[in-house]
Amino acid sequence: MSQIDYFTEDRSVEAVNARMGDEVSPRLREVMASLVKHLHGFVKEVELTQEEWEVTIEFLTRTGQICDDKRQEFILLSDTLGVSMLVDAIQHRRPPGTTENTVFGPFHVDGAPVLDMGANISLDGKGETCLYEGRVQDPDGNPIEGARIDVWSDNSEGFYDVQQPGEQPEWNNRGVFITGADGRYWFTGIKPVSYPIPDDGPVGQMLGHLGRHPWRPAHMHFMLNHPNHERIVTHTFVSGDDYLTSDTVFGVKESLVVDYVLNESGETKWKAHFDFVMVPNQ
Amino acid sequence: MSQIDYFTEDRSVEAVNARMGDEVSPRLREVMASLVKHLHGFVKEVELTQEEWEVTIEFLTRTGQICDDKRQEFILLSDTLGVSMLVDAIQHRRPPGTTENTVFGPFHVDGAPVLDMGANISLDGKGETCLYEGRVQDPDGNPIEGARIDVWSDNSEGFYDVQQPGEQPEWNNRGVFITGADGRYWFTGIKPVSYPIPDDGPVGQMLGHLGRHPWRPAHMHFMLNHPNHERIVTHTFVSGDDYLTSDTVFGVKESLVVDYVLNESGETKWKAHFDFVMVPNQ
Repeated sequence: MSQIDYFTEDRSVEAVNARMGDEVSPRLREVMASLVKHLHGFVKEVELTQEEWEVTIEFLTRTGQICDDKRQEFILLSDTLGVSMLVDAIQHRRPPGTTENTVFGPFHVDGAPVLDMGANISLDGKGETCLYEGRVQDPDGNPIEGARIDVWSDNSEGFYDVQQPGEQPEWNNRGVFITGADGRYWFTGIKPVSYPIPDDGPVGQMLGHLGRHPWRPAHMHFMLNHPNHERIVTHTFVSGDDYLTSDTVFGVKESLVVDYVLNESGETKWKAHFDFVMVPNQ
Repeated sequence: MSQIDYFTEDRSVEAVNARMGDEVSPRLREVMASLVKHLHGFVKEVELTQEEWEVTIEFLTRTGQICDDKRQEFILLSDTLGVSMLVDAIQHRRPPGTTENTVFGPFHVDGAPVLDMGANISLDGKGETCLYEGRVQDPDGNPIEGARIDVWSDNSEGFYDVQQPGEQPEWNNRGVFITGADGRYWFTGIKPVSYPIPDDGPVGQMLGHLGRHPWRPAHMHFMLNHPNHERIVTHTFVSGDDYLTSDTVFGVKESLVVDYVLNESGETKWKAHFDFVMVPNQ
């Protein structure tokens, strides 16, 4: 039994990682070894105190305990620390000129109705109407036929339908559109509004201690699927929103900010144009 | 609005940390900035996938949800990743020749009875008896009078009394002793046994995936308090235990391993000698 087998402050990372068994998969070994290295690196860099450690344990425990089938506080934590966007960025590095991803968010619902182009997805009659239109194309500018465009947004009061069951009509501000040969899409929704993420739990308290607000800038969600192209999960953001540069989940990318212009000649108050460029499958 | 305000993969750490408000306390700012740096460093180093992120969110959620007033799974997680020992090591760097700390553990109970020197703390009559004896002294070898020695261990079946309320006598294998002018202590307990940490939850599953066992080597807990000296929280470990070099919580230090010798001339089967050296308050 040599000294080298024991944990010491200096050798803490090596001591922990040396315990992994021979049968551990290479990927799990890589991930855990890196996690332990960075976790210990953090504790050493700040010389975390016993009291701070206790606060952390208590915070993580409350974060787990507030979760239920409708609320996922650990995702909020990941979002507000920029981890969700970082994972998304790493997994969706795309060529310049193609549409960037952003966070999926917790409010997508499978099974929204497939609608004809031009349909109105705002079923509660609230908010300022907006025509959404544009094209789905490949990097060479060719239209993509058969792209499935799933859209969803909050209503004019800042809530998604699933946050207000019974109060909002089912599938309010949701729909699925499928492009024709010209790759075009168009539908009516509302000009969405900014809203705070749920901030009455541990993550909201954390944001408060950090002098941060819980707001997200107004955005319309889009998910585009096509068999021959890489899926796009993204939002378009409303130009001029107060929270564009301080989105609490760091979701904004400059290429996704869209000018909402007054629709002088049309039936809606606003018009928002955005073209999607999908990356062909490798 | 310049590009620099938005989150990118390259600038993820700076983007998140720039959000902290001006009023944040310097220490919280330091801790959070380091946490974000190391957390993002981990995600970038392994290029964490969306699926791995989802597994992590789910793991943390379950870890929080299994916690209750008797079980603290996040402390187990901290323990098994070496974080608890690391925090303890950083906070209790002591001069050579003084008694080293180790983890406090979850099984201490305040209010154990103060007993006369020589008393027997094993109330269930199970296990192999052992005389614990030694001296409490300062770094110059002077005895420390009035040191309060709080001791606790599992019983011969590997359970603390608080894990088996109603089954074990109250205060089984617990007691408090106060040193006299000679600084000596002596009491009868049992030779403790190794035991697994609770491994039927997320942390146990993690250990399984990592090819690790959940066992702790046999140990007797000691907490020493004296008004003029730094508190000691430590264990003594039973020499020869199978798990000395693989304690699942990394608690073993070489200086804390004690030979249990047959007590040929005494009333107990075993004898374990250990001298404590306390560091005077600064």
